[in-house]
Amino acid sequence: MTKISGRALPRENRGAAIVAELMDGIRSVLAKYEVTYCEYTMAKEYLVNLGQAGEWPLFADVFFEATVEEADSNARDGSPGAIEGPFFLPGAPVLEPPFVMPMRAGEPGDVLVFSGTVTAPDRTPIPHAQVEIWQSDAQGTYSGIPYPDGRELPPEFNLRARLTADENGAYQVRTIVPVPYEIPTAGPTGALLTAVGWHAFRPAHLHLITSAPGFESLTTQLYFDTDPYLDSDIAGAVKPELVLGLEERTDLLPGERTCFAASYEFRLPRARK
Amino acid sequence: MTKISGRALPRENRGAAIVAELMDGIRSVLAKYEVTYCEYTMAKEYLVNLGQAGEWPLFADVFFEATVEEADSNARDGSPGAIEGPFFLPGAPVLEPPFVMPMRAGEPGDVLVFSGTVTAPDRTPIPHAQVEIWQSDAQGTYSGIPYPDGRELPPEFNLRARLTADENGAYQVRTIVPVPYEIPTAGPTGALLTAVGWHAFRPAHLHLITSAPGFESLTTQLYFDTDPYLDSDIAGAVKPELVLGLEERTDLLPGERTCFAASYEFRLPRARK
Repeated sequence: MTKISGRALPRENRGAAIVAELMDGIRSVLAKYEVTYCEYTMAKEYLVNLGQAGEWPLFADVFFEATVEEADSNARDGSPGAIEGPFFLPGAPVLEPPFVMPMRAGEPGDVLVFSGTVTAPDRTPIPHAQVEIWQSDAQGTYSGIPYPDGRELPPEFNLRARLTADENGAYQVRTIVPVPYEIPTAGPTGALLTAVGWHAFRPAHLHLITSAPGFESLTTQLYFDTDPYLDSDIAGAVKPELVLGLEERTDLLPGERTCFAASYEFRLPRARK
Repeated sequence: MTKISGRALPRENRGAAIVAELMDGIRSVLAKYEVTYCEYTMAKEYLVNLGQAGEWPLFADVFFEATVEEADSNARDGSPGAIEGPFFLPGAPVLEPPFVMPMRAGEPGDVLVFSGTVTAPDRTPIPHAQVEIWQSDAQGTYSGIPYPDGRELPPEFNLRARLTADENGAYQVRTIVPVPYEIPTAGPTGALLTAVGWHAFRPAHLHLITSAPGFESLTTQLYFDTDPYLDSDIAGAVKPELVLGLEERTDLLPGERTCFAASYEFRLPRARK
């Protein structure tokens, strides 16, 4: 009888090797747990539903982008990167100094004065570097993103902006302290978390893309050291170097109003020729 | 600083453990190959396209059903099973003896006389067991299945039928010898195979579901020992016990016409109480 090896397919190029190993990895888990036809049928329906809900980008970024980002980050100099996530929107307003993020009158949340510098790998300042910031509001909602639960959205480009560091690479911007939030839970991605018993939280974070001519742009996130979700981020995207202290201050705002302050130095990798 | 473990999520139940290990397996391949953002973005687009083309059932059955089926088959007595695949259709015609599969006048292909018995695990015959058969035609096309290349389809229920074994559990049916065929290649599933350099062939096979009161039904496939794709089935669904010899005969059809003969004994597991 002909020898049956099962599935002798070549793995001679990078694509074939990656696809074959992804499939082998999935198959080995199906085999280890003796996944039943009932479970397999549910899984197929789930994959169909994920597409119909338009949640592949969310699902992939929550569960897999951090792994891709880590390899990308490790391959270059400069500050650590972090995942971009699915909530970036192009075209955010360009601010004029003194920088204040676009927000509603009486925007809920603690005031945050976020400041720092943008530098080269040797820590010399990069004049006039651009810093793009986007973040959730105090309800954990991003502007401009349709949520599957149909919640009311903040105004267009609320808490999204681009600003330019000064001639010494220094920047300071007033915003609010972001809060931990649940990734959208009303669709299939959230349903999976509920089914297996995981929370849907990401620790509070600022999203940032910092760029300057002659340097590679840096996509990253900054977290805060009092956050309860630092070690169980559903997106697995926290790196220790990206966790900032939050200092309570009364000397940064007019009238001795209390605010929180945090600072960070972005070190940009030099552009590859 | 708070300890950052990355993604400390509980794996306390079967669902959580399976999902976590599937994700870990995928991540370990992404990390091993340092999959780039460019590749990651292509992969996300691919997942979206697969859903829009309606190919999740095809993709899953081609690449993963065999693993699920193997665990299912190993857990019971009787003949080995095989994947059902995505091409089964309910409601096939019920044949009266002498059994001839529904086919066109002059249906292309070599004539096959397929016969055998249906038995219990102790090999006693099961009278009047039902055998359902579906197969491709000589072009490798199934009736009733929309193909992404828009090919012309055989008539409704061509080469699909149900028949009943006799009082001794014996059956004999005239059909054509199936041919190796490519799974549908015009959609995203086929595009992946092309991209990584794999052929899209399955070895020729009959699909069968055999059932009888008091027994578990058996979904299986039968292959032929001269097939060039037995060891590289894209669906990985060939088992040595399911590979039949094809005997050339001149004594089975009127007028000493040549045909091929193959036979198989289906041993059905007893139904669980």
